[in-house]
Amino acid sequence: MSEPRKTYIRPLDLKHGQVDMAHGSGGRAMAQLIDELFARHLGNEYLGQGDDGAVLPATGEGRLVMATDAHVVSPLFFPGGDIGCLSVHGTINDVAVMGAKPLYLAASFILEEGFPLGELARIVQSMAAAARDAGVPVVTGDTKVVERGKGDGVFITTTGVGVVPPGRELSGRRARPGDVILISGTLGDHGMAIMAERESLGFESPIVSDTAALHGLIEMLLASAADIRVLRDPTRGGLATTLNEIARQSGVGMMLQEKALPVQPAVNAACELLGLDPLYVANEGKLVAICGENDAETLLTAMRTHPLGEQAAIIGRVHADDHHFVQMTTAFGGRRIVDWLSGEQLPRIC
Amino acid sequence: MSEPRKTYIRPLDLKHGQVDMAHGSGGRAMAQLIDELFARHLGNEYLGQGDDGAVLPATGEGRLVMATDAHVVSPLFFPGGDIGCLSVHGTINDVAVMGAKPLYLAASFILEEGFPLGELARIVQSMAAAARDAGVPVVTGDTKVVERGKGDGVFITTTGVGVVPPGRELSGRRARPGDVILISGTLGDHGMAIMAERESLGFESPIVSDTAALHGLIEMLLASAADIRVLRDPTRGGLATTLNEIARQSGVGMMLQEKALPVQPAVNAACELLGLDPLYVANEGKLVAICGENDAETLLTAMRTHPLGEQAAIIGRVHADDHHFVQMTTAFGGRRIVDWLSGEQLPRIC
Repeated sequence: MSEPRKTYIRPLDLKHGQVDMAHGSGGRAMAQLIDELFARHLGNEYLGQGDDGAVLPATGEGRLVMATDAHVVSPLFFPGGDIGCLSVHGTINDVAVMGAKPLYLAASFILEEGFPLGELARIVQSMAAAARDAGVPVVTGDTKVVERGKGDGVFITTTGVGVVPPGRELSGRRARPGDVILISGTLGDHGMAIMAERESLGFESPIVSDTAALHGLIEMLLASAADIRVLRDPTRGGLATTLNEIARQSGVGMMLQEKALPVQPAVNAACELLGLDPLYVANEGKLVAICGENDAETLLTAMRTHPLGEQAAIIGRVHADDHHFVQMTTAFGGRRIVDWLSGEQLPRIC
Repeated sequence: MSEPRKTYIRPLDLKHGQVDMAHGSGGRAMAQLIDELFARHLGNEYLGQGDDGAVLPATGEGRLVMATDAHVVSPLFFPGGDIGCLSVHGTINDVAVMGAKPLYLAASFILEEGFPLGELARIVQSMAAAARDAGVPVVTGDTKVVERGKGDGVFITTTGVGVVPPGRELSGRRARPGDVILISGTLGDHGMAIMAERESLGFESPIVSDTAALHGLIEMLLASAADIRVLRDPTRGGLATTLNEIARQSGVGMMLQEKALPVQPAVNAACELLGLDPLYVANEGKLVAICGENDAETLLTAMRTHPLGEQAAIIGRVHADDHHFVQMTTAFGGRRIVDWLSGEQLPRIC
């Protein structure tokens, strides 16, 4: 991606124009799309280098963290966000939960022939705003175009790089019996915002996605001096899947308290209507934290002082279990196993 | 991606099985796909961490390089390669042409419902072999599934990270009047291998893609002590597009010698048949190098000692030109402008 040139016959038609195959050809049409859309909105000193890759400052003694996510959410626009900001938040969060400071993003676009250029511009602007707000620039990118009917509007893969300071160790492998499990806020908001939009549920007040970059919250938690073992953002597959993954990685069991799980009434209602369980519904701005038992209150207090953690709660504990089961004490005092999702629940939620 | 678990009811059916929506759900089916396919073939200590991102060693004082590429090539399998190895080579090359040592790759897959698992396994194995041969591991990944008719088999985005030693400066902005332009081998092999396959041209001996990782060749060139200003791999849009990009970035003109351009006879024949110009056809294992005039012979000699540079040639020179035109002295002694590609020539070539 390089500096604008002024030699195009006419500017991109954002009102009526569409993506065509030439936008992916490597020629003049692609250069124009990059100049007038991607470079214009996402522009920064690194993207402006205009080479095949971005050359970035040395990262020194901190360990590198790298995470990647393809985004295929449908619909592309939903209450609270769109595929553009989602693709920035999602990858920043994957880097930040490793305890790293997110530094740079790369973005690759797969566009379907015929996609309206005006919608693409909205998506890129949303991406740019999310990257700016988070302080994490998109430093390099790529654009491909596939024929009509061979894609679905826009797919975006973002890859993030960050740096973990020496001595900091966070991993899904570090949960131990006795540890306490916290969640930073309500469950299922993102997934149900998408589902409500897709099914045209038409609630009085729409459910709004919680899509957000969590690195600010995480930085605050890490500064709280609590002994945090695991951080994870419970996205696809929801809290249940995330906890099963951690239980498997750490070789432990977990017990949740159903009463303690924060769920918005509208999300609960939509879940009941669609026969879904909020435990399995994706979040895009929530954090699971697991810490030593003595630090749970400190961590909860720290979470609640941040705008993204106001509804934080302690939701369960880790215990020894050779089966690595995640279980739940239900609101009625019974127990049930919170198993892995076995089939398809919510396709294309992120 | 995490350590294999043994609790799936039956192994993936690579003979008759297909990708279904559950493979993208974040649940058990996805975990099985990751365990039995991605982790099994691509596995390494970083991928095995099983967290949302990979934690990698500190990279120290060298500057970071980051490059990303979406791969949407059609067909997925072609003479000389497939989307798997192509996606490894392409991104390694984008990192290496910045003068960086490629260190790590991230890979994101967008799979279409119904895609045969056996073909996916072939692609992942090819990726794994390419990554192993290049010494650049895939350290983190992501898998999404889209409904039948919303994708086209498999799309793969790879992102690479590497490190440039202090003091080394390579960029498309560094070409100067008087510099010499070299190419490491024949033009258009990859693009014509794809086109011949797509059009079922059925030559006696098929045209074979040149897809290859160039970092070994590049390392050798950088060790040759020639003053290299620019390295670039002329992929989508071919040599013509790459040189136009560099001319624009550096604010210079260029003059090529048609007689000096190496093109295989079969590629020339296929180009003539399809009305294509090899100058605009993609390469996936070729290198353009621009160096100071006094170093051209040294660089040419160095290129030719490497297996990937045996047919290297000096093909032109850089001169001052406010219009930043790339021109060519034709085989008949005339001159023509080698312009940017203005429409679509070869869609989905990489």
